Amino acid sequence: MTYTVQIKVMPLKDLLDPQGKAVMGGLQNLGLSNVSDVRIGKHIDLQIDAADKEAARSAAEEAAKKLLANPVMEVFEITVN
Amino acid sequence: MTYTVQIKVMPLKDLLDPQGKAVMGGLQNLGLSNVSDVRIGKHIDLQIDAADKEAARSAAEEAAKKLLANPVMEVFEITVN
Repeated sequence: MTYTVQIKVMPLKDLLDPQGKAVMGGLQNLGLSNVSDVRIGKHIDLQIDAADKEAARSAAEEAAKKLLANPVMEVFEITVN
Repeated sequence: MTYTVQIKVMPLKDLLDPQGKAVMGGLQNLGLSNVSDVRIGKHIDLQIDAADKEAARSAAEEAAKKLLANPVMEVFEITVN
């Protein structure tokens, strides 16, 4: 069966996120002064052919660990539908 | 009140996503041949101070339209918690 998998990759909470800081500055310059704590990461949608949901999740975990996320700087979160 | 808002920005379905294609190639080279249709977008987490959930959502929509997403190439999806 084919599962739709979403992987969210975000910078670790303890690390600075310069891209997020820049976007926050941009939003405030546009008049959105009520915005704070902007963090920017990646969102990856993919299809995985697998026998069951658990197999799809473990393939997604392997993909995230091997290629999509850098564990030194990022955390990932997997959702399988 | 402060709301935690997530904005997901993805390339439009009808457009090619070269970054996704490259990642799919990379995953297949790593032995994950059961992966297909990889699409890569951005995930933005932010905090918005607003009177209610609806106000937070409309501020997030303004942010997405003005700065975070390019409507010619991308769609966005907002989740307010």
